[in-house]
Amino acid sequence: MTNYRIDNLQYCNWSEDIFKMNRNAHIDAVHVTIAYHEDFDEVKKNVADWHSLFDKFSSLIFHGKTFHDIEKAKQENKTAIFFGFQNCSPIEDDINLVESVHDMGAVFMQLTYNNQSLLATGCYETNDSGVTRMGKEVIKEMNRVGIIIDMSHSAEKSSLDAIEISEKPIAITHANPSFWHNAKRNKSNDLLKALAESGGMIGLSLYPHHLLDGSNCSLESFCTMVAKTAELIGSEHIGIGSDLCLDQPDSVVDWMRNGSWTKTKDFGEGSSDNASFPKQPEWFKDTLGFNNIEKGLKAVGFNDVDINGILGNNWFNFYKNFIN
Amino acid sequence: MTNYRIDNLQYCNWSEDIFKMNRNAHIDAVHVTIAYHEDFDEVKKNVADWHSLFDKFSSLIFHGKTFHDIEKAKQENKTAIFFGFQNCSPIEDDINLVESVHDMGAVFMQLTYNNQSLLATGCYETNDSGVTRMGKEVIKEMNRVGIIIDMSHSAEKSSLDAIEISEKPIAITHANPSFWHNAKRNKSNDLLKALAESGGMIGLSLYPHHLLDGSNCSLESFCTMVAKTAELIGSEHIGIGSDLCLDQPDSVVDWMRNGSWTKTKDFGEGSSDNASFPKQPEWFKDTLGFNNIEKGLKAVGFNDVDINGILGNNWFNFYKNFIN
Repeated sequence: MTNYRIDNLQYCNWSEDIFKMNRNAHIDAVHVTIAYHEDFDEVKKNVADWHSLFDKFSSLIFHGKTFHDIEKAKQENKTAIFFGFQNCSPIEDDINLVESVHDMGAVFMQLTYNNQSLLATGCYETNDSGVTRMGKEVIKEMNRVGIIIDMSHSAEKSSLDAIEISEKPIAITHANPSFWHNAKRNKSNDLLKALAESGGMIGLSLYPHHLLDGSNCSLESFCTMVAKTAELIGSEHIGIGSDLCLDQPDSVVDWMRNGSWTKTKDFGEGSSDNASFPKQPEWFKDTLGFNNIEKGLKAVGFNDVDINGILGNNWFNFYKNFIN
Repeated sequence: MTNYRIDNLQYCNWSEDIFKMNRNAHIDAVHVTIAYHEDFDEVKKNVADWHSLFDKFSSLIFHGKTFHDIEKAKQENKTAIFFGFQNCSPIEDDINLVESVHDMGAVFMQLTYNNQSLLATGCYETNDSGVTRMGKEVIKEMNRVGIIIDMSHSAEKSSLDAIEISEKPIAITHANPSFWHNAKRNKSNDLLKALAESGGMIGLSLYPHHLLDGSNCSLESFCTMVAKTAELIGSEHIGIGSDLCLDQPDSVVDWMRNGSWTKTKDFGEGSSDNASFPKQPEWFKDTLGFNNIEKGLKAVGFNDVDINGILGNNWFNFYKNFIN
């Protein structure tokens, strides 16, 4: 059996070095974020920039559109790049743009970033009213055209609503369980169980604000959390979505948090005296850390099938069912 | 003392006939809707269209910017036209556009139309999470630049939040009390009392879906409702916002309800077998109906000062305090 390695969330400052790193780590597919706050025209520009990168680095990467491209990447020793949005801003207020962004290659779309969107509530809002009237319609349309609903940054009720409303399984591409580290962005046991029961996937995050002890999180602590999560929902629903933001200047995390919604500075998961991108843990400075996780999972008792599932095959199977 | 007549909400299919009607009814100021679903660029186009109307019909109308323009309109026997939005779509997701739309002449902005917006919850949503994180920031900015917060189409908690958060009184430009006609768009006693206690205004609506018995509502029933509302909150907080949509084709009400948020037809306050603009009651077919309301209010016992307040002076005082 072929084993795939998939990192189901990165937002790096893309360069030849980063693409080489992913290949050196044998990463066959990466789901990359191409929108946080961008509207439709701005996303078109980002897609055009990616086409330029595909052209320039064609020996390392290409545009992934279906699960077949993950197989192709493995065969050709390249990385298939799948597009996704961390917000619904690219469809603006127009349900007809769902099909347009799918035509451009978007295969994942979060219904919200941290704030309330037109579709659902983000995890930083005080109150969560769930999936909205427009949200219900857009979920139907995403199901129809084949864009996966991603609730990584959404609030609890909104996420449970999305699982219930969607006719297809949904994803949480990058987050961790809150039983391990109770951050706003992490997910409750109830939500994780509902996600898994509906056939969905969670990509565990390596972003320090989502980790117990942050940048000082130990590999053992992370892998013990993976084991507990597997006990809770079954290891076949678990993958990796590292949320790696390598080589990004701090202005980018400031823009992620503030977009153009506030004139008062928001520090998101950080704080005024800790506003920068956090430092990655030593054992996951980049995707070569997949090798450390492999060892760590073995050390906490996982077998090879489960380890390969978590490091890529589970995402591959999800893509095979729903991005095809 | 000068008495003003103000209709604080119209969305007619603008023409010389409509402008003449308003002058024949001695309407000194009209707050006109220039956006339901339009984004910033689309609103710029609507403003340009209005400048063309101001030019073409300069003997009847002009662009109102402050309360002084209401005085000027009275003196010159014209109608001052004030711009407002029934949604926050013109500011898109950018707080910096609040000042830009004020520069274009916007003096009222609803935080929502019927659906959830980025700022607050509309009255047609199942759950109301109140004013959002971005909503709080935008209210501050609207207070700063001088745009009045209008909660006509917003849900209850969102409206109560807006009253509490705003440092200036807010408006409900066109709606009726739900004690009289329990429609989703009408307002509870609690909300009306909070509005008035904070110095806000409600413009009573003549749109049939907001009226008891719809198109067959009697003048007496309407004026009795005005008397009860005055008992509840004081007549000085009451004006008229007729919501007249004269000469509009039914395609317009369909667009108001559906915008581009759904592929399934939504009928809003209507229904599949009653999808059109409803017929105005006989005693308020157009703004000449202000004369009927004047008689009706006298018949239910209002004195002249209160009647002139309700027909325009109360809105004039509100403009004098907050649009200056």
